[in-house]
This record gives sequence, structure tokens and C-alpha cells, in this order.
Amino acid sequence: MKVDGHHYRSVWLTDDGLSVAVVDQTKLPFYFEIRTLRTCDEVVLAIKDMVVRGAPLIGASAACGLRLATLEDPSDDYLQAQALALIAARPTAINLRWAVDRVCSRLLQANPKQRADLALKEAQTICDEDVDNNSCIGSHGETVFVEHWRAKGSKNPLNVLTHCNAGWLATVDWGTALAPIFKAHNAGIPVHVWVDETRPRNQGAALTAWELKAHGVPHTVIVDNAGGHLMQQGQVDLCIVGSDRTTRTGDVCNKIGTYLKALAAHDNGVPFYVALPSSTIDWNISDGRKEIPIEERNKDEVLYVHGIGADNVPTQVRVTTTSEALNPAFDITPKHLVTGLITERGICAANELELLKLFPENRA
Amino acid sequence: MKVDGHHYRSVWLTDDGLSVAVVDQTKLPFYFEIRTLRTCDEVVLAIKDMVVRGAPLIGASAACGLRLATLEDPSDDYLQAQALALIAARPTAINLRWAVDRVCSRLLQANPKQRADLALKEAQTICDEDVDNNSCIGSHGETVFVEHWRAKGSKNPLNVLTHCNAGWLATVDWGTALAPIFKAHNAGIPVHVWVDETRPRNQGAALTAWELKAHGVPHTVIVDNAGGHLMQQGQVDLCIVGSDRTTRTGDVCNKIGTYLKALAAHDNGVPFYVALPSSTIDWNISDGRKEIPIEERNKDEVLYVHGIGADNVPTQVRVTTTSEALNPAFDITPKHLVTGLITERGICAANELELLKLFPENRA
Repeated sequence: MKVDGHHYRSVWLTDDGLSVAVVDQTKLPFYFEIRTLRTCDEVVLAIKDMVVRGAPLIGASAACGLRLATLEDPSDDYLQAQALALIAARPTAINLRWAVDRVCSRLLQANPKQRADLALKEAQTICDEDVDNNSCIGSHGETVFVEHWRAKGSKNPLNVLTHCNAGWLATVDWGTALAPIFKAHNAGIPVHVWVDETRPRNQGAALTAWELKAHGVPHTVIVDNAGGHLMQQGQVDLCIVGSDRTTRTGDVCNKIGTYLKALAAHDNGVPFYVALPSSTIDWNISDGRKEIPIEERNKDEVLYVHGIGADNVPTQVRVTTTSEALNPAFDITPKHLVTGLITERGICAANELELLKLFPENRA
Repeated sequence: MKVDGHHYRSVWLTDDGLSVAVVDQTKLPFYFEIRTLRTCDEVVLAIKDMVVRGAPLIGASAACGLRLATLEDPSDDYLQAQALALIAARPTAINLRWAVDRVCSRLLQANPKQRADLALKEAQTICDEDVDNNSCIGSHGETVFVEHWRAKGSKNPLNVLTHCNAGWLATVDWGTALAPIFKAHNAGIPVHVWVDETRPRNQGAALTAWELKAHGVPHTVIVDNAGGHLMQQGQVDLCIVGSDRTTRTGDVCNKIGTYLKALAAHDNGVPFYVALPSSTIDWNISDGRKEIPIEERNKDEVLYVHGIGADNVPTQVRVTTTSEALNPAFDITPKHLVTGLITERGICAANELELLKLFPENRA
């Protein structure tokens, strides 16, 4: 996507292939800074500290990290150790494991001397595939948007609610949940987006609103508490979110609070879509609640809120005098609350049968 | 309740009867300050700016405000104008109208020369009744807590989730939703409270957590997004909230986000109670969604978060670069999501028949 007229991806290997460049998402929305990561350890830390975040992006970043690892030491032992460190950086999103397993298994089959070149190629392929997949998700999702817009008379804006950030910043480019929004907007469909601020880290207020504003898409930030009321009032035509891991049966793990919006959508007859590349599907599990580990992050993310002060300097405020807090980062939306899964191969109902029709190579 | 060993109410007429003292809730939790309001206009502003907030408390404060109005000018015209200004200060909570109508109708029947004394007496009565009613709510609610605690084997703490602040700060004393928590805790029942932070104004993180900490009740602050996940995981035994207005049929209007928690409670078989004095019931309306006006507050409450900075000075941070935001302050929880209404006269199901059994004087 473009920032001030210049096209950026969220992550890329630098031209010399010796480092990984990322948009520092801890600085957004107030500062747009590119950060250069020179070692695989730095990539691990960037994932852990959420300099890069979003399931597809951390997968692509990890692939780039393994390229750096091959430059440091292409031995089996070292690469396997770095692979484990990358996977451990964030426990919930499956793309991380998927990307690391994909790159690592190919590297380990090759002669150590060829691994650096192979890793470069594989990381670039994963990044390019992510862009292509998200573009396809955007096109499939656009058809859904057009249908819903026509169904309401093709007049008033289509009101779309989204949670967290599943935009281009959460992927290499385009985004997942935001890709259909960008494509529909580009095609002249009047789209208005309700942006959940998404406490505790406010990825909605900070990142999604920033992306939409930069692209000229009309939007309104709301607190996470407000979406149910807006749905009750008929002010939401559809919801669309991303996913950090989806079971083969269609249960969706996504940012904490997604489940509450899915419940409200169900209660008010509002369609609830999940946009995801198939790399987000964990074909090994069937029960989201029982089988997906939910990351628990530092409680300071609850006790403090980051932003910009009166002097325009990034700072934080403490919002409570207690020190007791809990910070689960994701929740599970059961499949029966999901209207449709929008994947790179098309749209399907959230169940195993329909998913396997799109992805038959995963039949048991 | 006690603060540093001294007993306070949230609002009271000073001993000379010439002014209204309130705990300044915009300064909490970092500063405990008493503010003196010397005119009815100042009371109106204190309600509007949420120096005092919480449905029962703004009703009691308005009653005290009318006492000040009688000192300024006891004429019909002036009192009626001040009554309208008080009611207009916050549109959603019905207690405000209830208290103003109650005091005003009595004043207007009396000789203007007697109105100041009458207003003093009536305001004090309303405050005392509020304390008594909340104490009764606490006792009734305590029996519910004991039942649920016994049902889980009387061993582990009873995990209670609450939204916003319906504690003593939201009333004259005791609170509504927190009254059973205080009473159960005092009786030796191990209660642990999940405190929704309650964006945008964070009354949960700021006020409820402060009250619970001061009283020694174990508690954990969570973001508003987290409650559904905790219920999915079996970590919530019951929910209890207050109400700003309840219809004669049992629909509950309360702080924005309450509806989402009620949906999650319903989906997970978690009992969802609403604690309210009967002054919160609007016997004139039957459909919460259609008939209760939802206050829309300043969007800056969404764009900024208040707290305390590194220098311990109260400040705010801006959390987004966009200026587009919407800030509805309440939502409606339909009666079928409510397990029980806990009133000063006892507990009943959320429907007209059961409510009228407790309050037969409101039969049509």
C-alpha cells in the first residue's frame, strides 16, 4: 500500500538480502518508521514485542528471519534452534509455525552451503504468495460486499464493522479483512467502516483507522463496547475480521473480543465474515476452545494505555490504582457464529465439509 | 463507605444546609477530593460533567440541587426551570427525572416560603432512602451469591463479573451491583471480582477497582473484550451489573457494553443479574430499544484516554490519528438475557408480571 505516495510492504528482505526491513508498528500511528533487523534474534524480538504483528505478517517475518539465520550459521542445530525460538515468540497464531516449518523443512533437506540462497528464495516466495492470497481474498470479499450493498438498495453506504487490525499492516500487503474494504472502495462502492478500538493494544484505533484514513475510506472509531448497540440499531450491515488460527471445522481464533461481536451479529441477524489465507488454518485440530493455546500477555497492557501526549510525544497513562489485571490476547468464535470464511480460493461456510471442498489436499 | 477510616457518602447536604458536597469522581482513582457545590447551576454542571455519575447518585444529587434552588428563588418559574435543567443534564438515567419530579411536585404544592425547608427534608429523605434501598439490594443479592457459592462446593472463590461502576460511588452509599459483593465479602464468602475496565470513561478500572481495593475485595481488571473468553473458560460464576433505566417489562438500559456481556453469559449458561432500586424502573415504557433515549457523549472520550502520567500528574493521551469517532454511552439488554432483577423488595424474573408482584402499586 502507499504511504505518502510511496509503495510499501510491511516486511521485506533488503536488496542486498542481508537484513529484514519492517514497518515499526509500535510507533504507528503517530510515527511511520522503517526498522532494519539484522539478525534472526532481532526478528524473534520484533515478533515478541509486536514491532510486527498480525498472523500472516509474523509468518512472513519469521520466514525472512530464517534467511538471516542461514547467514549466521546454516547448520541443522542452529536452524532448528532458531526455528523453535521463532515459533515460541507468539503461541497462538498458526501462520508462524506454518511458515517456519515450511522454510525449515526445505532448508534441512538441502546442503548447508545452499541453504542461504534457498532461504532467500523461499522467504521471498512466502511474502509474494501472501500478497497474492490477500489480493484474492479481497476480490472474493468484494463480491460479498457488492451483494450486501445491492441488497440494501445500492444507495446508502455499506456499514462494515471490523475488530483489531487485519489490514495490510497485519500481512505483507493488502490485508485480510481490510482487503475487501479497499477493493470495494476502489471500485466505487461507498463503504463506511466502524473501527473497534480493540483494547488493550488499540490496534483498531491506532492501525486500522490509520490505514483507512490514508486510503480515504470513511470510518468511525468506536470503543469495543459499542458494536452491539450499533447492531441493535441497524447501523451495521456486516462484520468482517481476520483470524490468527482457524480449526479444520471452522472455529475461529482471533483478537480478544471478536467472540462478543460475533454473538451480537448473530443476535441481530448481521452477517459475520472471517477473511483468512489458508495458512491460518490448523488442519490438525477440530475444537478451537480446547485445542488452541491462548496467549496471555503482560498485564501492563491493561493497566496502561499508550498514545501521544499534549506535547505530541508518545507516552502512556495508567488508568487504575490497582495492580491486579489479566490480559488474554485472543478468544474463540465458534463456527456456528460465522457466516462465511473468505479464503484465497473462495468463500465457504465455516465447517469441515465446505473447507475441504476448497482445500481437498487436506482430506484426512 | 469508609475511606482511610472515615465514613463518607457520595453526596450530602452540608450541615448548614447551604451547599452540596460530593466526592469528585473525575479525580478518582488518583485523588480523593470533596467538592462543594453552592448553586443549583453548579449541581447541573457536576451531573453533566460526571463529577457525580451513576443513576441513583445523580437522582440524589439533583434532589440536593433543588434544595439549593429553593434558597436562590423559591418561585414556581425558577424551580420549574431548574428542574428542567437538571433533567436535561443526562438524558438516559430515569432516576434523575424520578427524583426531580418527586421533589418538585411536593415543592410546588407548598407555600413558597416553606419550600426551602421542605426541599431540605425531601432531599435528605431521598438520600437516606437510597442508602436503605441499596442495603436491602445488598442483602437480597448476598443470598444469591451464597446459593451460587454453595452450588460450586463452598470451596473456591465465587467469580463475579461486573461492568462499569455500580458501587457506592454510583449511589449515595453501598452501591447496587457492588452491594451484594460487599455484603458477601463481609460475611466471609470468598468473592473474586472480574472488573471490566469500561471504556470510554474507564469507570470499572478507575472506580470499581478503587472501591474493591479499598474494601479489600479480591479483584482483577480486564479489558472489556475479555469477559466472553473468561466465560467460555468457565472462569465466571455470575455477572452482576447496575441499571440506568429498566422498562416495566424488564429490558435493562445500562452502560455501553453491558449487552455484549449479557449475550456471552447467555451463550455460556452464566447467570446474569441486574441490581437496581425501583426508582430506576420506568413504569411508562415497555420496549427498551425503541423508547429509551441513548445519550451520545463527546467523541473525545473515545479519541483520548485519561489517566496518570509518569510524573503522577493526571493527564490524557490521544490513541488515534483519526478524528472520526462515535460515543454512545448506553445500550439495551433485552429481558430474555437477564436471569434476575435484584431490587430493594426482593428478586424477580425480568418480566412485567413478576415486577408487578413486587411493586403492585404500579399496576395499570
